[in-house]
Amino acid sequence: MIVWLGDAFIAVGRKGKDMSKKHKVEIPETMGAVCGVVYIFAIILFIPFAFRRDIVAATSGGGSKDAVLNVEHVETGRILHRFPLSKLSSYAYALISVALIYILGIADDIFDMRWRHKVLIPAFASIPMLLFYYVDFGVTQVVVPILLRPYFGELLNLGSLYYAYMAAVTIFAPNSINILAGINGIEVGQSIVIGILILLNSSLYILPLSSTTTSPPNQATMDVHLFTIYLLLPFLGVSLALLKHNWYPARVFVGDTYCYFAGMVFAVVGILGHFSKTLLLLFLPQIANFIYSAPQLFHIIPCPRHRLPRFNARTGLLEPSVTTYPPEKPLRKPLVPVLELLHTLHLLEVKKGESGRIISSTNLTLLNLWLVWRGPRREDRLAIEILGMQMCVGLLGLWVRHRLALLVFTQDNRAVGANHV
Amino acid sequence: MIVWLGDAFIAVGRKGKDMSKKHKVEIPETMGAVCGVVYIFAIILFIPFAFRRDIVAATSGGGSKDAVLNVEHVETGRILHRFPLSKLSSYAYALISVALIYILGIADDIFDMRWRHKVLIPAFASIPMLLFYYVDFGVTQVVVPILLRPYFGELLNLGSLYYAYMAAVTIFAPNSINILAGINGIEVGQSIVIGILILLNSSLYILPLSSTTTSPPNQATMDVHLFTIYLLLPFLGVSLALLKHNWYPARVFVGDTYCYFAGMVFAVVGILGHFSKTLLLLFLPQIANFIYSAPQLFHIIPCPRHRLPRFNARTGLLEPSVTTYPPEKPLRKPLVPVLELLHTLHLLEVKKGESGRIISSTNLTLLNLWLVWRGPRREDRLAIEILGMQMCVGLLGLWVRHRLALLVFTQDNRAVGANHV
Repeated sequence: MIVWLGDAFIAVGRKGKDMSKKHKVEIPETMGAVCGVVYIFAIILFIPFAFRRDIVAATSGGGSKDAVLNVEHVETGRILHRFPLSKLSSYAYALISVALIYILGIADDIFDMRWRHKVLIPAFASIPMLLFYYVDFGVTQVVVPILLRPYFGELLNLGSLYYAYMAAVTIFAPNSINILAGINGIEVGQSIVIGILILLNSSLYILPLSSTTTSPPNQATMDVHLFTIYLLLPFLGVSLALLKHNWYPARVFVGDTYCYFAGMVFAVVGILGHFSKTLLLLFLPQIANFIYSAPQLFHIIPCPRHRLPRFNARTGLLEPSVTTYPPEKPLRKPLVPVLELLHTLHLLEVKKGESGRIISSTNLTLLNLWLVWRGPRREDRLAIEILGMQMCVGLLGLWVRHRLALLVFTQDNRAVGANHV
Repeated sequence: MIVWLGDAFIAVGRKGKDMSKKHKVEIPETMGAVCGVVYIFAIILFIPFAFRRDIVAATSGGGSKDAVLNVEHVETGRILHRFPLSKLSSYAYALISVALIYILGIADDIFDMRWRHKVLIPAFASIPMLLFYYVDFGVTQVVVPILLRPYFGELLNLGSLYYAYMAAVTIFAPNSINILAGINGIEVGQSIVIGILILLNSSLYILPLSSTTTSPPNQATMDVHLFTIYLLLPFLGVSLALLKHNWYPARVFVGDTYCYFAGMVFAVVGILGHFSKTLLLLFLPQIANFIYSAPQLFHIIPCPRHRLPRFNARTGLLEPSVTTYPPEKPLRKPLVPVLELLHTLHLLEVKKGESGRIISSTNLTLLNLWLVWRGPRREDRLAIEILGMQMCVGLLGLWVRHRLALLVFTQDNRAVGANHV
C-alpha cells in the first residue's frame, strides 16, 4: 500500500524534498498514515483470535447468553465468570488512544502545528487509556526500594501523582521519538529496536526459560504480556514495511504521524502492561537525546528550524550541523564558558573566530554528537551505528533490570506477577 | 473552533466554491472533521460521568480491587458483580467505529476516492462494533410477525444473516446521508432531525410517561437507551454548531467526513441499542431518495458528476437540474416509455424536442423531485421544507411503530425489554 498510495499522497501535496541527498527529488510524506490505518485494522481483525478460547467456550452452548454462563460456570468452578470483558476493553481503549493520536498526528502533519500545541497531542490521546487504567486496574502504589523503606514503608501510594506520571510517560514517548529524527530510517528504526526490546522483555515473563523463575508464571501476568505481544507484533510488521521504503535512500517520509503513533503504541503497552518504568529504561537513548537537546528546545541557546546533520554534497557524507552566532547577535555571555567546557569534554564542538569569539557550535542532538565523536559518515552508516548503540543500551538496561533489581527490591516481579513493575 | 480553524483549512487547500450562489467565494470544506474530533473528545470525557455511580461504588473501599469486589458484593447480594465492563466496552467499541469512519472519511475527502471504494468505507468501520455485538449480546433471533408464525415459529434465528443485515444497515446509513445532499444545511439538517427522532424514541423507553407501560421499564432496556441518549446528545451539540455555519448562506462545507460520521453514529446507536429496525423507519426519506436515485447510481440512465439542483442566477432560485440526452448519445430505447410514465405520474419531468425525442430529464434525487412538485424556490426554503417533511414522516413512523406494532406482534417491546426490536 505504501507503494500504491505514494502517488496519491504526492497528488494531494503530501510530499517533501530530502535535504541530505545530491538529487533532491520530491518523495511522498506522512506515509506513517498508511501504517497507522493498516495497524488499526490488523488489531481489530486480530481481536477475535486473541479471544478464540473464550469465544469457543462461550458459544459451544448454542450462542445464547444463558448458555455462556453455564458453560463458563462449569469451566471455572465456583466463581461466576463471564466473557473476559476486561481484556476486551483493554484492547478497545488501547485502540482508541492509538486512533486518537493517529487523528491528531495527521492534523499536525496537515496543518503543521506549533511546537507548544503539538507537545500536548499525546496528552489528549492518552485520556481514554488512563481512564481505562483507572477503572480496570487502578493500582497507584509503587514498590519502594529497600534503602528507602524505613521512610516510606514497603508500598507507597502515589495516588493521582501516579496518573500524572503515566501522562508524562505518554507525552514523553511520542515526542522523544519525534525529536530523535532527521535522517533516513532513524524514526522507524529506533521504534523497531524499542519494539523488539519490549517483545524480549515480555517473552521473559511468558516463556518458561529462566531458571530463576521458581513459581509458574501467573495468569494475570501472562495475560498482560500476551496483550503487549499482540499489540507489538503487528506494529513491528507495519514498521518493517515502512522501514523498507524509508531506509537510505528513502523513497517515502514517515511524518510526525508515525512518530506519535509509534510512541503511543509503546506508552499504551507500557502502561496497560504495567511495565512503564521498564519502558523508560528502553527509552534511554531518547531520554539522553532529550536532555542533551533541552538547552535548544527551551531556547536557552538559539535553535534553528532544522537541526538535522548537514549534508556535504562534495563528499556525500553527513557532518554535524551548526548554529552560528553572527557578530550582531552573539552568544549570551554566561553561556560562553559552559560551551567551552562542553567542548573540552567532547560533548560539543565550537568554532572560534580570530578574536576568540565563539562563532558557531554544533546543534545539540544525539545524531550531531555522534558525528562529532566518530567523524563524518554516510547517512545509512550513521543510522546503523545509532540503532546498534540503542540496541546495546537497551539490552544492558534489560539485563540490569532483571538481574540487579534484586539488590534494591526484595524480589524480581517476574516471579510474583507484574502488578508493581 | 469552526470559525477559528476555517482559515487554516483554506490554507491547506480544504476549500470549495458554492455552486448555488451569485457570488462564488471560496469557503472552507471538510468542516465535519472539526465536529468529529470534538464529538470524540466529548464522549471520552463524558464516559466517567456515565459510570459515576459505579466508580463511586468501586472506590469507596479505598481504590483497591479487593475492596471493589466486597463493596459490589454487598450491593448486589448473591452475584459477584464487578464494574460494568460490558457497558464500558460498548462505549469503547462504539467510539472505535466512529473514530475509524472518521479517519476513512477524512481520507476520502483528501483523496477524493472512487465511488465504488467509498461505499465500503462504513463496512470497514463497522467491524469493531459488530465484533462487540457478537461478544456482548449475540442475539440473532428476530421476533416473527403473527401472520408468519405458522411458518417460522415465534423466534427466527437469522444467525450470520443477521450480521449481514447489520452490516447493510451500517453501510446504508452513512451513504444515504451522503447522497441526500447538495444544498446548504441539508446534510447536517437531516442528521439533526434523525437524531431528535431517535432521542424521542429512546425517551419513550426511559420516561414513565406512557399509560401502556404496565410493568416498570427493566434495567437492561434503560441502559441501552441511556447509552443511545449519551451518544446522541453530544452529536446533536456538534451538529447544531456546524449547522449554524453551514445553513444558507453557508460559510463552511461539511464534507463527506460529516455524512459518514453522522451515519455511523446512528448505525452504532441503532445496532448496539438494539433498535436497528426502528432506525430504518426513521431513514424513510433517505431510503426513498436512494431507491429513486438508484437508476442513476447504477448507471441504468446516465448520471452526471453533480446532481444538485441548478441555481438560476437571474431569479436567485433553485430549479431541478437535468441530465441531457444529446442526439449523438440518445436515451436508450427501452427506457423511453418508462420515463414517459414517470412523467405522467409526476415523478419526473422530461423535456421533448421537436421530433418528440426526449432531450432531457430531471436528475433523480428527492431534492429535484421536490422542486418538480413545488416549483423553484430559494435554497433555505427548500431545505426547510425537506426537513419538515422528514420530521413528519419520522414522527408518523414512530407512531406507527409503537401503536400499530401490536397488530403484527403480540406485544410492544417497550413493556418487555428491547432485546428483539
